[in-house]
Amino acid sequence: MDYASMKPSEVRARIRAGVIKGPTAGMCSGYAQANLAVLPKDLAYDFLLFTQRNPRSCPVLEVSDLGSRTLSFLAKDADIATDIPKYRFYKKGVLEGEYDDVRELWRKDFVTFLIGCSFSFEAELLEAGIPVRHIEEGRNVPMYRTSIECAPAGVFHGNMVVSMRPIPYGLVVKATEITASMPRVHGAPVHIGDPEAIGIADISTPDFGDAVTIRSGEVPVFWPCGVTPQDAIMRTRPEIAITHAPGHMFISDVRNIDLKY
Amino acid sequence: MDYASMKPSEVRARIRAGVIKGPTAGMCSGYAQANLAVLPKDLAYDFLLFTQRNPRSCPVLEVSDLGSRTLSFLAKDADIATDIPKYRFYKKGVLEGEYDDVRELWRKDFVTFLIGCSFSFEAELLEAGIPVRHIEEGRNVPMYRTSIECAPAGVFHGNMVVSMRPIPYGLVVKATEITASMPRVHGAPVHIGDPEAIGIADISTPDFGDAVTIRSGEVPVFWPCGVTPQDAIMRTRPEIAITHAPGHMFISDVRNIDLKY
Repeated sequence: MDYASMKPSEVRARIRAGVIKGPTAGMCSGYAQANLAVLPKDLAYDFLLFTQRNPRSCPVLEVSDLGSRTLSFLAKDADIATDIPKYRFYKKGVLEGEYDDVRELWRKDFVTFLIGCSFSFEAELLEAGIPVRHIEEGRNVPMYRTSIECAPAGVFHGNMVVSMRPIPYGLVVKATEITASMPRVHGAPVHIGDPEAIGIADISTPDFGDAVTIRSGEVPVFWPCGVTPQDAIMRTRPEIAITHAPGHMFISDVRNIDLKY
Repeated sequence: MDYASMKPSEVRARIRAGVIKGPTAGMCSGYAQANLAVLPKDLAYDFLLFTQRNPRSCPVLEVSDLGSRTLSFLAKDADIATDIPKYRFYKKGVLEGEYDDVRELWRKDFVTFLIGCSFSFEAELLEAGIPVRHIEEGRNVPMYRTSIECAPAGVFHGNMVVSMRPIPYGLVVKATEITASMPRVHGAPVHIGDPEAIGIADISTPDFGDAVTIRSGEVPVFWPCGVTPQDAIMRTRPEIAITHAPGHMFISDVRNIDLKY
């Protein structure tokens, strides 16, 4: 099947039916994919405030109504408890298990957060002729904890996690401009160049994802990363939390181009 | 006194001391001013969600910590209960009175919302040689209720309120581009041209503010307006709410130029 050219609603139906169980990278070309975080209502205010105070690493695309498994903005016919290929279920910050359906775990006090994802801007970078190394090398993007503190909010706190892409010097401005035009999917780089300036001791050993090759004439460019809010959630050891498994995203009906405005 | 060239902290000190009691338009040139809404914590989640779902009419610049009268982002030394020249105090949506100091009304369960204001982009428009008619005519900006529904959130709902500025045809694109670059202070116009298309029956009778002259060769341009969240708050008739009095804004230490990013 050519999932790249398929409509999001068709791919979501296949995910719901258990036909698709793997990572969503490359599916539904041109459409935005999103990170998932589900929390009980008693944590939702603090978490929403955390995202408001840290919009670059936590660009919220949609928040569900209390207890609802449906959405209004990102997709009209989605079921948030079935339409992601793989979920992670946490108790007190400890991974309890992975599921391809969380209907039986759903609670009336759950609030769903969908957060913008760098898949959206990577599509635009490729379109503009800017190489994306981890895609070329078939790896997950390298991600690093930094010394950049997030603004705390209630129980949530932590440092920014960034993703890194090596960019040829002559394309750094173009890459900055393209991503800056998409603030709802992390926006402009937070840092260009020396990893130590943001507290990264060793660029060859990422904290999450895989290392990638940095060639001569390329500079490491760092963008705020959606792992930041996940990291902040796990630090608080919430009674219960559900997220997507890495790379197994929610595929929305909203096109990347529409996230520019 | 030349308040236009004075530092925000100096003007806030004069407001706090009761020396300045009037509207803040034109003060602290280059610095952002903000709309105020103070609500009890039990409404804060729904209101924060309302702003997340309606970012163009409700661009939140900062939300205080619970019960706190201080800020972190917009100003370091401000007291939100004293540093606005005139407050309005509402009970169940009815105006109970105006105050120049709300310290005695303050409660531990209050949450403060500061919301971006079109004063910021008007400064940029003037800088770019685009006329701002209500300033030329010494009036308040004309504002209108529209047929554009806001996305509801919990108890909050309502239609978008817009402000209108007549712009010469040759400058409409420039005005659009300049304001689009400032999404944290309402951003691009929501509508350009025929008022009826957004449910405004009579452009000469605004619902808030004053009518202004529209000259031959000018088109009415409509921007999302910070009265939208105030209107949504009053519809819910909250037990208690505090806002700024119209035109009596919070003057921040953040420059308009820094709201572009």
